[in-house]
Amino acid sequence: MKALVFGGPGQRSWDTVDDPGIQDPTDVIVKVDTTTICGTDLHILKGDVPAVTEGRILGHEAVGTIVETGAAVSGLKKGDHVLVPAITSCGRCGPCKVGMAAHCEAVGGIGWIFGHLINGVQAEYARVPYAETSVHVVPEGVSDEQVLFLADILPTGYEIGVQNGGVKPGDTIAVVGAGPVGLAAMMTAQIAGAGRIIAVDMAPSRLKHAENFGATHTVLGGENAEQEILEIAPGGVDVAMEAVGVPGTFDLCTRIVRAGGTVANIGVHGAPTTLHLEELWIKNITITTGLVSGSTIPTLLKLARDGRMEAEKLGTHRFALGEMEQAYDVFGAAGEHDALKVVIQA
Amino acid sequence: MKALVFGGPGQRSWDTVDDPGIQDPTDVIVKVDTTTICGTDLHILKGDVPAVTEGRILGHEAVGTIVETGAAVSGLKKGDHVLVPAITSCGRCGPCKVGMAAHCEAVGGIGWIFGHLINGVQAEYARVPYAETSVHVVPEGVSDEQVLFLADILPTGYEIGVQNGGVKPGDTIAVVGAGPVGLAAMMTAQIAGAGRIIAVDMAPSRLKHAENFGATHTVLGGENAEQEILEIAPGGVDVAMEAVGVPGTFDLCTRIVRAGGTVANIGVHGAPTTLHLEELWIKNITITTGLVSGSTIPTLLKLARDGRMEAEKLGTHRFALGEMEQAYDVFGAAGEHDALKVVIQA
Amino acid sequence: MKALVFGGPGQRSWDTVDDPGIQDPTDVIVKVDTTTICGTDLHILKGDVPAVTEGRILGHEAVGTIVETGAAVSGLKKGDHVLVPAITSCGRCGPCKVGMAAHCEAVGGIGWIFGHLINGVQAEYARVPYAETSVHVVPEGVSDEQVLFLADILPTGYEIGVQNGGVKPGDTIAVVGAGPVGLAAMMTAQIAGAGRIIAVDMAPSRLKHAENFGATHTVLGGENAEQEILEIAPGGVDVAMEAVGVPGTFDLCTRIVRAGGTVANIGVHGAPTTLHLEELWIKNITITTGLVSGSTIPTLLKLARDGRMEAEKLGTHRFALGEMEQAYDVFGAAGEHDALKVVIQA
Amino acid sequence: MKALVFGGPGQRSWDTVDDPGIQDPTDVIVKVDTTTICGTDLHILKGDVPAVTEGRILGHEAVGTIVETGAAVSGLKKGDHVLVPAITSCGRCGPCKVGMAAHCEAVGGIGWIFGHLINGVQAEYARVPYAETSVHVVPEGVSDEQVLFLADILPTGYEIGVQNGGVKPGDTIAVVGAGPVGLAAMMTAQIAGAGRIIAVDMAPSRLKHAENFGATHTVLGGENAEQEILEIAPGGVDVAMEAVGVPGTFDLCTRIVRAGGTVANIGVHGAPTTLHLEELWIKNITITTGLVSGSTIPTLLKLARDGRMEAEKLGTHRFALGEMEQAYDVFGAAGEHDALKVVIQA
Repeated sequence: MKALVFGGPGQRSWDTVDDPGIQDPTDVIVKVDTTTICGTDLHILKGDVPAVTEGRILGHEAVGTIVETGAAVSGLKKGDHVLVPAITSCGRCGPCKVGMAAHCEAVGGIGWIFGHLINGVQAEYARVPYAETSVHVVPEGVSDEQVLFLADILPTGYEIGVQNGGVKPGDTIAVVGAGPVGLAAMMTAQIAGAGRIIAVDMAPSRLKHAENFGATHTVLGGENAEQEILEIAPGGVDVAMEAVGVPGTFDLCTRIVRAGGTVANIGVHGAPTTLHLEELWIKNITITTGLVSGSTIPTLLKLARDGRMEAEKLGTHRFALGEMEQAYDVFGAAGEHDALKVVIQA
Repeated sequence: MKALVFGGPGQRSWDTVDDPGIQDPTDVIVKVDTTTICGTDLHILKGDVPAVTEGRILGHEAVGTIVETGAAVSGLKKGDHVLVPAITSCGRCGPCKVGMAAHCEAVGGIGWIFGHLINGVQAEYARVPYAETSVHVVPEGVSDEQVLFLADILPTGYEIGVQNGGVKPGDTIAVVGAGPVGLAAMMTAQIAGAGRIIAVDMAPSRLKHAENFGATHTVLGGENAEQEILEIAPGGVDVAMEAVGVPGTFDLCTRIVRAGGTVANIGVHGAPTTLHLEELWIKNITITTGLVSGSTIPTLLKLARDGRMEAEKLGTHRFALGEMEQAYDVFGAAGEHDALKVVIQA
Repeated sequence: MKALVFGGPGQRSWDTVDDPGIQDPTDVIVKVDTTTICGTDLHILKGDVPAVTEGRILGHEAVGTIVETGAAVSGLKKGDHVLVPAITSCGRCGPCKVGMAAHCEAVGGIGWIFGHLINGVQAEYARVPYAETSVHVVPEGVSDEQVLFLADILPTGYEIGVQNGGVKPGDTIAVVGAGPVGLAAMMTAQIAGAGRIIAVDMAPSRLKHAENFGATHTVLGGENAEQEILEIAPGGVDVAMEAVGVPGTFDLCTRIVRAGGTVANIGVHGAPTTLHLEELWIKNITITTGLVSGSTIPTLLKLARDGRMEAEKLGTHRFALGEMEQAYDVFGAAGEHDALKVVIQA
Repeated sequence: MKALVFGGPGQRSWDTVDDPGIQDPTDVIVKVDTTTICGTDLHILKGDVPAVTEGRILGHEAVGTIVETGAAVSGLKKGDHVLVPAITSCGRCGPCKVGMAAHCEAVGGIGWIFGHLINGVQAEYARVPYAETSVHVVPEGVSDEQVLFLADILPTGYEIGVQNGGVKPGDTIAVVGAGPVGLAAMMTAQIAGAGRIIAVDMAPSRLKHAENFGATHTVLGGENAEQEILEIAPGGVDVAMEAVGVPGTFDLCTRIVRAGGTVANIGVHGAPTTLHLEELWIKNITITTGLVSGSTIPTLLKLARDGRMEAEKLGTHRFALGEMEQAYDVFGAAGEHDALKVVIQA
C-alpha cells in the first residue's frame, strides 16, 4: 500500500510499504477513507518529537472502513464506517476507566500512539489497536468531513478548553490564539452557551476566521491586547484559553482572568514560564492543562448528527490521498494559503 | 395609585389604593414600568391559593424604576432601573446563602411573597423588601421587554428544567407541555447545548410556537406520544421535563427517560401521582422538583444583553397599565387568543 | 466441581457439576476462594426472579484466584488474586464508558448476570466474562474478608446511597433500614464526612449493629419515627436513604428530607408507591434510584487497604465452602441468628 | 477600651483607645470573648502589608457577644454569641452571591478588612460591618475554643486546600508545610475521606504534630522528599497542597502530582515561580489558588457541634486578653515554644 513515511528530520515521502495486519485479538484493520494533517505532524518533521523514528507512517486522524477484525472483537464488524481518533484507549486501565485515555497505561502512559509510537493513518490502510474501546461508528447520514475533525481538534478544544475551563451559559471567554484548535474551542464554547467570545491573535486573517467560528469580539495581539480585552470584559474574563503554546500568551491569560475564573491551557509548550504567584495566590483562580482523551467524541458526534455543529468548516483545502505531499505543502504554509485544515480523501 | 386588587375568588378590579411606603430599612419603592400576568395569578383568582387574602394587590413580575430607598440601602439609588423578580431573597439565611431563595427563611420559608403574602407589582408603585439582595439593575441598552420574563418564567425553565435536569451539550431532551414555562425551558436548553429538543403538547398551536423556541421535533400528546418520542430517542431521552402539572404527564416522563437520565419536574401539581418504583428502582434515574430561586438571573441578563437569548418572543400581546383588566381577559383565555405572555406597560 | 445449584422455587442443592471453561477470548476462569450469599439469592429461591432458570449456579460476590485466561486477556494472568464483583462490565458500550455498568449493553442491558443469566460464583470455579474490565486485583496485604463485601453491598451503599445522595462533610443523613446494605451506606457515609447519621429500623438488634457502623443516632421505626427524626434534624435531613424497598419507608423519606435535600432510594421495590407531588413539587428535592455499577470499587479497595474502612465487620458468620447449605440456612434466618453477612471460604 | 495597636513596622502596643460605635445600619458591636493571632499579623508587624496604617487595631479572628445592633439588623440581637470570621461579606455583590466573599466588592474587592483596612478584633470591643451576612451564631454546647479557629485557618484549609483540591474519599494527598494552615488542611481532608495523608515539612516537631491532625505518613523536607513521596504514592498523589508560600515547595507539588491530579496552593506567596509548562501541559493537571471566603463555616460549625472535628487541638497556648503582648511574644517565636495557635480570652 501507499503511506506517508517519516524519513528523519525534514524528510517525508509517499512510499509503498507493507500492508498492515492484525497483531492482537483486539485490533481491527481499517481502509482509510478520509484523513488530515495536524500541526504535530509538522513538529515531527522538524525533528521536535524524538520518539518518532525513521520509517514511521505519520497521521492520527481518520475516518475509515473496517476490513478485518481481531478474534476478540465482537462489537465491530467488517464494513463498519468508523472515526479513528488520535487517542487510543484500552478501556480497562485506571485512567481509561475514568475517561482519561490521554494517559492510557496499556499503550505506554500516553494515549497518542498513531504516527508516534506505532504506524499512523496517513495511508491506505491502518492497524487500529484496542479498536472496540477506541473507534466510534459514524452515524448514518453524516459525511466523513462532518466528523473528521472530531478525531482530535474538536475534542481538544472542547475537553481541554471548554470543559476544563468550566464554560457555562452566559460566560465571557477569551481564546488567545485563533489557529485551528483555538477555533475549535470557540465553536464548542458557543455550543456550551458562552455569551461573549473574544478571539485574540496576531494575524488579522485568523481573526476573520474566528468570526465564523463564534467569536463575538476580536482583539489583535500585542501591547494593547490586555487593555482591549478588559474593556470588553471589565474585571476580567470568566475563562481565558491559551491556544498558542508560548510563555507570553499564557501570561496574558493569567492577567485577563477575573478573580474566581479559570485559565485553560490548550497550547503545547516547549519552554517553562514565569507564574506570578505573588499576584495570583489571592485571586482564587484555576489553571488547567491537558492532552485530549476523546471522552467527548460521542457527544460531538451527536452534535454533528443533529446539525448543531458544523465541524466541516475547519476544512479549507481538499486533496486526493495520492496528493498527500501537496497537502503537506499547503498545510505546511498555512498562513500563505489561508488554510485551516486540509481534507484528504481516498 | 391604581392597582389590580384581588377581591376574593372570581373577583378582581383595577382599583385606587394607597401608595406603598418604606416599612423596613432594606426596602425600596419602585415605580412599575412594565409588568405581566402569570398562570399563578389565574389560580389565585380561582381561589386555589388560600393564603392570598381579599384586598391583596396581585403580580410578581416587573421592571421598574426606584423612587425611594430605605436607610440601609447603599448599593441601589433613586433612578435605578431594575428587574423585580418573583422571588424575594434576604441574602442572609441558610437557603439564601446557598442560592436557594425559593425557601428564604426571613420571608416565611417561601421566597414567593409578591402578590401572595404581601402586595404585588400589578400596580403603579410597589414596595420591594430586601431590595439589595433581590432586584437586579437592568444592563444598559436592554429594553424592559427583553428582561421582563427573567422575573420568573425564564429562570424557572432554566433552573428547574435545564439545571436540575443537568442538560449538557448534545443531550436529547423532551419537554412535556409547551406553555410559556415549557417554552422557556426549551429556549434555555438550547442555550445549554441540547442537541435534540422534543416538544410534546396536546395543542398543535403550542407545538407551532415550540418550533420558534428551539424545539427540533414536535410530538402531539396522546396515546402514541410515548412511542413517537422513543423513535426519536431510542432508549429514552437524557432529560424529560414535566411542564404541565398533572399525574399523566409526570408518568409519561418516567417512561421516556433513559437509564441514567433525569426527570425534571417543573409543573405545579395539585394531586399525588403513582411512582412505579417497581420499574424505576433499577433504572438509575434522578427526579427533581422545585420552585425557582432566581439564582440564574444574572446569567440570563448577560445572555439577553449579549443577544444570545430573545426572551421578548414570549410576549405576544401588549397593553397599557390602565388596560390591566383587558390584559387579564386575554391571558385568561390564552388558547383562544394564541397568547403566550402579555406585556403591560406604564 | 461442586456448586450451589438452583432447582426451581424452593430448591437448592450443593451438587457436582461440570467445570466451567473459557468461552470467549475475554473470559477468565477463577478458583473461588471466598464467597457469600446475598438477599437477592433468597429472592431467587422464593421464585421472585423468573429470569433465573433451573440448573443455574447462584452467587455474584467472590474473591478468587485466576487459573486460566482467554486469548484476548493481556492485563491479568494466572495466579492473580481478584475480586469478582456482582456487575459485569464490557468496558466498551455507552453505559460502561460513563461508569454505568449497571446497564452494560453487551451483557443484555443489565450488568448483573452472575447467578442470574449465567452461572454464578457459589462454586469451586467460575467463568468470568469481560474479565479485564470487570475484576479488580486485590491489593497486597489485604485479606479476602476485607474485600469480599466490596463485590456488591459496599459499592451499593456508596454509589446508590452516598454518591447519589450527594452526601457532603457535615451533612445530617437518615438511613431507613439497617440491614446489610443500610449498614454499608452508613459506613461509607461516615467516610464521606456525614456529621449526623440517623439509623431507622423496626428491629432493635439492627439498630444496635448500626451504632457499630457509624450511626450517631438511632430511631425505632413506627408511628413516632418521623417526629423523632425531625427532632434530631429540625427542618429535615440533608439526605434520606431508603434501604428497605417498600412504599411506607420510601414515603417516610420524602417527609423527612429538608427543602433542597435528596432522597436516595437503595431498596429493591416490588410495588409502586404514591408520590405526593402536590407537596413535593415546591420542595426543591431530588430523588434518585439505581442498581450498583461498581465504579467505586477501586476507591473502596484503597480505603480498605489504607485501613480507613473495616468492611469485614459485615461478616458475622463463617463457613467452609462445603458447608454452603448450612450457610444458606443461617443467612435465610438472619434475624434469628443476628446475622449480617456470611463468609464462605474454600 | 484596650486594644492591640499597630504603631508602624516593628511597633505594637496594648493601648487604651476609643470604644467603637455603630457607623452603618448593618453594623453590630461585639464584645470580644476569645481571639487569636495569625501569621499575617506578624507579617503586618514586619511592615510587609503596606495597606495597614499606623494606629490600626490588629486581629481578624474572634468569638464574641453582641452588645449593640444597627438599625437594619433584624436577624441578630444583643446577647447573641457569635463567631466573627476573618472575611466580611456584604451578601449582595456578585462575588458574595456565589460564595466568594474573598472578593466582596462592597468592602473594596477583598473581603479581609479586619485588622487591615478597618480596626480588628484584638480588642475588648469591635465594630463588625455587614454583620448579618458575615457572622455566625455559635451553636449551643460548643465552647469558644472549639470554634475560634473556624474564623480563618480551618475554612482556609478546607476551602483552599480540600475543596479546591477536590479531595474525595480514598484519595492520597500530600500537604507540603505542616504549620497551622497545613494542619487544618490535613484535619479537614481526613473528614472528606482522604485515605493517605502525607505530611511534608523541614521541622520534625511539626511532623509530630501532623500525626495528631490526620497524617498517615510523614516525609522530612529536602532532597529526598520527592522520591519518598512517590514511594508512598507511586505515580503521584491525587492532590498536592502547598502550605508554605515559596517557589520550591510549589514546584515540588507540581512534580509529585499524578496525571489528572490537582495542586491546591494555600500558601501566601511573595515572589513569582517557574512553571514547567513544557512538562505540565500534557499532564492534565489543575492548579488552584485562593483566599478563604468562609463559605464553609456553617459546615464546619456542624462538624464541630457533632464532635466530628476537634478544631481546639490547634490551640496550644493560652493567655488572658490583658496578656496580649506575651501572646505575641510566644506566637512570634512559635518554633521555640512548639506553639501552633494561641488562645486569648477575656
